[in-house]
Amino acid sequence: MVQSGQITFYTHMYSPYCHRVHLALEEVHADYKAVTINVMEWPQWYNTKVNPITRKIPAITYGGPAAPPEDPSPEAVKLTESMVIVEFLADLFPGKLRPSDPVQLAYARLFIALFDTKVHEAFKGFFFLGAPVSDLLDQLEAIQARLPETGFAVGEFSIADVAAAPFLARIMLLLENDIGKYPVGEGKKAFEELQKPKFARLMKYIADLKARPSFRASYDHAQVLFIWQNNPAIQRA
Amino acid sequence: MVQSGQITFYTHMYSPYCHRVHLALEEVHADYKAVTINVMEWPQWYNTKVNPITRKIPAITYGGPAAPPEDPSPEAVKLTESMVIVEFLADLFPGKLRPSDPVQLAYARLFIALFDTKVHEAFKGFFFLGAPVSDLLDQLEAIQARLPETGFAVGEFSIADVAAAPFLARIMLLLENDIGKYPVGEGKKAFEELQKPKFARLMKYIADLKARPSFRASYDHAQVLFIWQNNPAIQRA
Repeated sequence: MVQSGQITFYTHMYSPYCHRVHLALEEVHADYKAVTINVMEWPQWYNTKVNPITRKIPAITYGGPAAPPEDPSPEAVKLTESMVIVEFLADLFPGKLRPSDPVQLAYARLFIALFDTKVHEAFKGFFFLGAPVSDLLDQLEAIQARLPETGFAVGEFSIADVAAAPFLARIMLLLENDIGKYPVGEGKKAFEELQKPKFARLMKYIADLKARPSFRASYDHAQVLFIWQNNPAIQRA
Repeated sequence: MVQSGQITFYTHMYSPYCHRVHLALEEVHADYKAVTINVMEWPQWYNTKVNPITRKIPAITYGGPAAPPEDPSPEAVKLTESMVIVEFLADLFPGKLRPSDPVQLAYARLFIALFDTKVHEAFKGFFFLGAPVSDLLDQLEAIQARLPETGFAVGEFSIADVAAAPFLARIMLLLENDIGKYPVGEGKKAFEELQKPKFARLMKYIADLKARPSFRASYDHAQVLFIWQNNPAIQRA
């Protein structure tokens, strides 16, 4: 199967979860329309007509007759949850995003499962909840240890990299700009720590991710920086 | 691809996560060897040789030369995380466990994502942490609302049912036997609530799940009851 219906993608640049879907859409060269949700004045139509299940972004509608984004057709398929949508896109565009070998694919899914528990927890902990930076660095080191000598998470680019790239990019951006609910200077110090030879493999991985055309098409550094600098949830008291 | 190597499955009957893998192995008619881990005296070889990553069950080894379960071959693939293993089995045995239509498959994965956040939270909350039973009943009602009129979570039996069945079976067993850290009698009351017409569709779904040969081969009611009756983590003070 390949894409046979329209795709409307509901998103916002701040969100690493939305970014996953954006990356996947670009990687498979989908034909899609992106709709930015105003997160400051959340639109009621989104909760009633697009994603009544979780009321969160990202979401997509797929197929159905042409319709305005704020009034999608009842016939259109509605999906939410970033990795559900990414796996759906991998199904729509076979041969992309998934290794053909089941073992490599299982390693990709295991990479995602570990990333989604351990790295997320350390991310939330350090930037939002006052956990020590060592937890974050430990988890990044564990992720680095899972990488092959060269290439992406399981060699060729896959869903594992789609899942990781948005978070790794934001972690680096927040550290470099010392954004987060930790003592002033700790972010920059961790950023410098990550430049040491010990983390060379992880930095090469992040550089490779950022060099993908899909990443360049889905990430505006200045805009994401501006949003996070002004995100009240992450500001120091 | 179909199974071309050995499968050793590390498990314990108490665990709904292990049960997911067990169900999937039975559904695809895999050739496998089940090894019960002594959870009371956790074996060191498991953490060093089978699952050094998370040190949890379930795990499987796949392929490699013949080896005893407690000393798996370094050549064998090692996998952990219940749904990673279930998806791997679906890849090894194509045409089973996954609907062929990408949209139905996306709905199955969405069902799992919602189940794994909302129902798990309510499950932990009610049985272990003193949350009100209404949370659990609300989430069960939400799951019921997602079911089609007949059949399984997305019609034909799929990974969604593999994910849900072990938890639904244990929820019913714990309620019926009033096991959990809630006031005496609340479990039985909730169990009776679930017998009312309002929950008829959910009860039919659970009955259909339990009638599967895969379920009957992987679940011993008396044994699971005994284990949970003696699980210190869930006993009243």
